[in-house]
Amino acid sequence: MEIITTRKLKDELAELQGKEVTLQGWIRNHRKQKNMGFIDFFDGTCFRNPQVVYDEQIEGFAEIQTLRVGSAVTVTGKVVPSYKDPETPEIQATAITLEGDCPEDYPLQPKRHTVEYLREIAYLRPRTRLFQAVFRVRSVAAMAIHSYFQDRGYVYVHTPLITGNDAEGAGNTFTVTTAPAGKQGTEEDFFGKPTSLAVTGQLEGETFAMAFSKIYTFGPTFRAENSNTKTHAAEFWMIEPEIAFCDLQQLMDLEEDFLKEIVRTVLEKCPDELKFLDGFTGGGLLDKLNALLSSTCARVTHEEAITILRKAMENGTEFKFEPKYGEDTAKEHEKYLTEEYFHSPVFVYDWPKEIKAFYMYQNDDGKTVSAVDLLVPGAGELMGGSQRETRYDRLTQRMDDLHISKEEMYWYVNLRKFGGCTHSGFGMGFERLLIYLTGVDNIRDVIPYARTPMNCEF
Amino acid sequence: MEIITTRKLKDELAELQGKEVTLQGWIRNHRKQKNMGFIDFFDGTCFRNPQVVYDEQIEGFAEIQTLRVGSAVTVTGKVVPSYKDPETPEIQATAITLEGDCPEDYPLQPKRHTVEYLREIAYLRPRTRLFQAVFRVRSVAAMAIHSYFQDRGYVYVHTPLITGNDAEGAGNTFTVTTAPAGKQGTEEDFFGKPTSLAVTGQLEGETFAMAFSKIYTFGPTFRAENSNTKTHAAEFWMIEPEIAFCDLQQLMDLEEDFLKEIVRTVLEKCPDELKFLDGFTGGGLLDKLNALLSSTCARVTHEEAITILRKAMENGTEFKFEPKYGEDTAKEHEKYLTEEYFHSPVFVYDWPKEIKAFYMYQNDDGKTVSAVDLLVPGAGELMGGSQRETRYDRLTQRMDDLHISKEEMYWYVNLRKFGGCTHSGFGMGFERLLIYLTGVDNIRDVIPYARTPMNCEF
Repeated sequence: MEIITTRKLKDELAELQGKEVTLQGWIRNHRKQKNMGFIDFFDGTCFRNPQVVYDEQIEGFAEIQTLRVGSAVTVTGKVVPSYKDPETPEIQATAITLEGDCPEDYPLQPKRHTVEYLREIAYLRPRTRLFQAVFRVRSVAAMAIHSYFQDRGYVYVHTPLITGNDAEGAGNTFTVTTAPAGKQGTEEDFFGKPTSLAVTGQLEGETFAMAFSKIYTFGPTFRAENSNTKTHAAEFWMIEPEIAFCDLQQLMDLEEDFLKEIVRTVLEKCPDELKFLDGFTGGGLLDKLNALLSSTCARVTHEEAITILRKAMENGTEFKFEPKYGEDTAKEHEKYLTEEYFHSPVFVYDWPKEIKAFYMYQNDDGKTVSAVDLLVPGAGELMGGSQRETRYDRLTQRMDDLHISKEEMYWYVNLRKFGGCTHSGFGMGFERLLIYLTGVDNIRDVIPYARTPMNCEF
Repeated sequence: MEIITTRKLKDELAELQGKEVTLQGWIRNHRKQKNMGFIDFFDGTCFRNPQVVYDEQIEGFAEIQTLRVGSAVTVTGKVVPSYKDPETPEIQATAITLEGDCPEDYPLQPKRHTVEYLREIAYLRPRTRLFQAVFRVRSVAAMAIHSYFQDRGYVYVHTPLITGNDAEGAGNTFTVTTAPAGKQGTEEDFFGKPTSLAVTGQLEGETFAMAFSKIYTFGPTFRAENSNTKTHAAEFWMIEPEIAFCDLQQLMDLEEDFLKEIVRTVLEKCPDELKFLDGFTGGGLLDKLNALLSSTCARVTHEEAITILRKAMENGTEFKFEPKYGEDTAKEHEKYLTEEYFHSPVFVYDWPKEIKAFYMYQNDDGKTVSAVDLLVPGAGELMGGSQRETRYDRLTQRMDDLHISKEEMYWYVNLRKFGGCTHSGFGMGFERLLIYLTGVDNIRDVIPYARTPMNCEF
């Protein structure tokens, strides 16, 4: 007796009609009538779950009727046409065996629970429909990212998570130590010096791009930022490709092609999940994703973007923050640009140098750097990238200005001496992408076990 | 003018013969003669690199002759038949432009450097042939692992890296903190309690297997073990699949199929890299990998393994450590079993319960657990797995015996109450696999930037 998955049952439904199959999984819901019963069954391999029907003919009918929600079962039965929906498989059961019981007070009952409640039982929430959808999209999107880069000859690089560089300057970091209080970061500590969790793999990524031309990272990064917002987590996954012989315009081409390909793959591989999420999040998700595929991302300089925003303001659009040349944009500005003005994703490039990182290519105007942010409708900034400063003198001068030690980062600046070349890269927070792809708006609900201030459960 | 990669040049060599192409990359070696020159060129996209030939006809002949090893260049020229080797592309250059210079004292000269020296310049070593081979195999193997699981319906799960569980009991951990000395792990710390870097994602992985049936993790793990050996690193990547409705024998089937598929893919996708590594590591690598594909892994219980080893000892085989029933095996024992006795990988299962982890299924004999180690020729233990204890009472009793808090781990033990089922999983250190695949015997040389005691550079 071969046991099949619900995925196979769905994929081969036509061929399996009338045949006997055996499935193993869990009871999501169990409706009992006097002479029969209906079990919503799932094994997590497919979002479209079969309905299991049994009647009095089945051996052990009375016990089967006592099976509780949450229990693990083995079901054998015949695949029959469904009355509800031709695409939803139905099994006329001939045997149902209990594999693992579940108590009456099981915390996941077949009703709508709030996401806040589900966060408290995060170890059970993957069994709900919402999180079956979210975490399958997460897995499929991760694979789509790997496939995108590998199919195009990129080398996947695991950059280090524990780092001794405190020069990256990208926010607060977590200290990593094995030493007792007072001895941390001393020669008595594990690494004999202060170490922390990496906030980026970009700098190490560049060292590999100067050897393999095209590389990408996909790994966890950490920020010890004490902010409790919907979009901040202390631990999250990042994708950071880095490409030699690539300038800023080519980087934008890559970002656009990459994003569309990921969206296309997820739409193709998770149609049922996205349909559910579209409904769950109030509609508009599928339209947004499909619109992306047929749109072209707009490209404007930061200066042009500010001009657009200031004109909008003059014409009556109300902003809480005044858009200013030489300054960062606010969320409301990003929203206006993508949703009101361009109705598409927008690349904003050539940013004021003072508000961007030291390693970005300094433009001839003396005021801006070759940085680019990709803004998308519904999720704001999705990717941030730049052409890198490849001129040794310009780079080290900028590091001096910002009090970043070029001695400590000798290996990074040396890349400019040892066969340096025009190169560019971007970073994308994976959870930011998932918020965009699923319509779920809280980062806590797209990570298996979120780490946020005062919260490190499971 | 389309710029192509050396990968494309190799893949489409026949079609490109006689055509003009442009390449961008670096000079690995430059041999000059009076009227011509030869450049060993690479861009890192392909292990088989073209030779660039130029003669006096080329514009700027004199300057081109001054181009130094390590420099970045753009080369345009005609693809011509190679004299050396029909499969190695040759370019008759019509233009060579310097993109980025490199000084005379560049640390990577075209000669054989020791791996110890190369570790000191780890940011440059990916440009060497050895590390081009190793890190491409790393990338290809990582992708092969993702493809293996995704093709079979497994969901990829990112388990947390920062953890508040101190109950996992798998060795020393790194403390993660943002608090000043004396306040660590208190309510003034980021998470309001002691937190550390995870040594495994298995336990969280099990919570997802109870929802998706088949899941895998692939992420970094950390051990603060103060050991300076060839096989220990403080930070390394692990793969941990977990499968519901799977017992120990089925787990072994999976491990064997998985390993063979990864080896097959790497042999297919990295033939040039493996040929080079075979030579570099003294031969035998390709034979070993090919032998795996045609062999069947042996399966013996721990007791049977000890009996084999003791008989060998009686017959004159010398062991430093006496093989004993009820005790762990030593490296020399593993070597004997795989290389002398079975001439194949060996599953050793049903281990003495006292030397294995609390979560393993307790066999009826009262002495052993359903654990399995996969030993491979040349690398020893490659995977460790088990059927999990699914009986609530047995599990919690064992936790009590070992002073592991079942209250703190309520979510883990609850999986046994809420629709529990037979399930199994294994863990494989990714670098251990790479040592097996590349023949390179030091973990420091298969990780981009290794973290070991007193060593956290780059």
